[in-house]
Amino acid sequence: MNAISSASSVQTVHVPLGERAYDILIGPGLIARAGAEIASRLKGRKAAIITDENVAPLYLEAVVASLNAAGIVSAEVVLPAGEKTKSFEHLIDVCDKVLEARVERNDCVIALGGGVIGDLSGFAAGIVRRGVRFVQVPTSLLAQVDSSVGGKTGINSSRHGKNLIGVFHQPDLVLADTDVLNTLSGREFRAGYAEVAKYGLIDKPDFFAWLEANWKSVFTGGSARIEAIAASCQAKADVVVADERETGQRALLNLGHTFGHALEAATAYDSRRLVHGEGVAIGMVLAHEFSARMNLASPDDARRVERHLKEVGLPTTMAEIPGELPPAESLMEAIAQDKKVKSGKLTFILTRGIGQSFVADDVPASEVLSFLREKHP
Amino acid sequence: MNAISSASSVQTVHVPLGERAYDILIGPGLIARAGAEIASRLKGRKAAIITDENVAPLYLEAVVASLNAAGIVSAEVVLPAGEKTKSFEHLIDVCDKVLEARVERNDCVIALGGGVIGDLSGFAAGIVRRGVRFVQVPTSLLAQVDSSVGGKTGINSSRHGKNLIGVFHQPDLVLADTDVLNTLSGREFRAGYAEVAKYGLIDKPDFFAWLEANWKSVFTGGSARIEAIAASCQAKADVVVADERETGQRALLNLGHTFGHALEAATAYDSRRLVHGEGVAIGMVLAHEFSARMNLASPDDARRVERHLKEVGLPTTMAEIPGELPPAESLMEAIAQDKKVKSGKLTFILTRGIGQSFVADDVPASEVLSFLREKHP
Repeated sequence: MNAISSASSVQTVHVPLGERAYDILIGPGLIARAGAEIASRLKGRKAAIITDENVAPLYLEAVVASLNAAGIVSAEVVLPAGEKTKSFEHLIDVCDKVLEARVERNDCVIALGGGVIGDLSGFAAGIVRRGVRFVQVPTSLLAQVDSSVGGKTGINSSRHGKNLIGVFHQPDLVLADTDVLNTLSGREFRAGYAEVAKYGLIDKPDFFAWLEANWKSVFTGGSARIEAIAASCQAKADVVVADERETGQRALLNLGHTFGHALEAATAYDSRRLVHGEGVAIGMVLAHEFSARMNLASPDDARRVERHLKEVGLPTTMAEIPGELPPAESLMEAIAQDKKVKSGKLTFILTRGIGQSFVADDVPASEVLSFLREKHP
Repeated sequence: MNAISSASSVQTVHVPLGERAYDILIGPGLIARAGAEIASRLKGRKAAIITDENVAPLYLEAVVASLNAAGIVSAEVVLPAGEKTKSFEHLIDVCDKVLEARVERNDCVIALGGGVIGDLSGFAAGIVRRGVRFVQVPTSLLAQVDSSVGGKTGINSSRHGKNLIGVFHQPDLVLADTDVLNTLSGREFRAGYAEVAKYGLIDKPDFFAWLEANWKSVFTGGSARIEAIAASCQAKADVVVADERETGQRALLNLGHTFGHALEAATAYDSRRLVHGEGVAIGMVLAHEFSARMNLASPDDARRVERHLKEVGLPTTMAEIPGELPPAESLMEAIAQDKKVKSGKLTFILTRGIGQSFVADDVPASEVLSFLREKHP
């Protein structure tokens, strides 16, 4: 990672994807520099900023001013906040407004918001004129370390499930302004932190150990936070470069997500009960415990993961989810739907220890069910 | 081009696009072989066939039977025929039905129809699960020699214009069954032929001369027809391979299309007055005449193009379009909208003679307007 000359506290992670290569800038003050950073990289001088009703009052004006100062004319689209916005209805609206703004192939769509705004805007950028430029300005920790990097975009199918319609469309630039994280609630920050810890658990045991020692500084802000975000983006970028379209190893990024998704579905995506990062936290502990149960890893590793996530304030067991959960059989059904069972076998991300996760494609569904029954509160 | 062993009259054009490489098969009896050809190339055993109300009664049953015989389970979606089907409304419907059919990444969407069905289905295949396999079974000459090859897919924006929303999504296989051309009307066949002639005019003067000598056999059917379609697909494939995402030379494929699109818009896309290929025929003559007027090519070349297209029965002048045309100024406006005028200059495909077309990016709009006034009936 190289420091950028004009602002020594800003780190750059380069994602070397050939003609789709791009930079992720991480540090304070990047919203104020958005216009200059975009103008120095893209030829176009028109932009459509897509944001939501929560984020707009906080940062939209600053982004527009920064673009104007750099000679970029922008249109703004403010959408309702929340997962329901990832729909065909809003996609059509956004495409229409991007075309109305006369955004051409070398101009850009700017996503200013969290994962929902990033996924929807990236999809619109991928299909208007068969692809225009795309800039991510993620405003949640989750979006900064996960969804804004890697080019997965999309919407939900109202009848068939989440993220089933979309394209791979890499951004041309990601501006992760770490100042915006100061306005997040503690719960939102912790939820994003679950994905940070995930990168350590996938294949970076030293990073996980560093987080165990330094997580308080990461939560406080400053250089340790920038360091943690940059390391996370670098880890994600490495996986994406090795497997851009998810034909193999990219699946490792789903560590903790199979159990997590099942819990999100079981709580009807009700963020009062469970948010994505919390589901991932519980899911990662379950994945380590299940790996121990399958004699793949030591139970000590599962306990170590649980201890750290608990320490930062994340839930680590199903019992901590408020309200009643459906029975283990229903959770198993959700998992089977998500993963496709082939002759009673599931594909799962398991682990041989901290930072030693792997894709297992022969996990017996019956074992998962027994495990879920055991763990069910 | 290599003959395929199992059916010596079938020709194969290979499109070498790296990991997106695919074959175009051209010849009789390919619908009956669709299942076998798909099964030998794709891993999946599920398919969703997208077709329209005109094509379904003619070929749908045969395609389904052929898939079944090869062990491929299929769902069928029959849409209204016509350009209006290239809408978000029908895209949503198709995506929904493809998901309902549980088509996964290695399964395929099959477009059975002309350009509208191909463009819409290809777009759906490009976005369901961020991309599933895609097979084109084009049933018009126009689709066989043009739209089914090259990966441009999309729909129209109801407010902003044609083909403004879409993706590049290459097919995995194109099956151009030449038997289906026998059911086309003479007018439809001629309209497709305009695009065949276009490949000669772009950069293959020998092919154009061959068409002048052999067009009657092409219209009658048999090996000359297969030869002409294969040569056209090869020509298009060459351009696509050199410039898959249309950043430069792929624009040559628009020879005749700038004038042609303006005439289509001027006749409100009313196929009783003008169909796409007829607009292209008139547009190609105009492009050659305009090139002569700009002293780039000999007027003899324009006359030669006109003579050949007239001979096959295509319109070659604006005067042949039934009904009244808007004034030259309105045509010019349509062109300017289509092409974006930069300081009074237009990008246009012009020519230095038969088979010597090129991209000119400095054509004075004023010259085009004078020319249109001159040519206006």
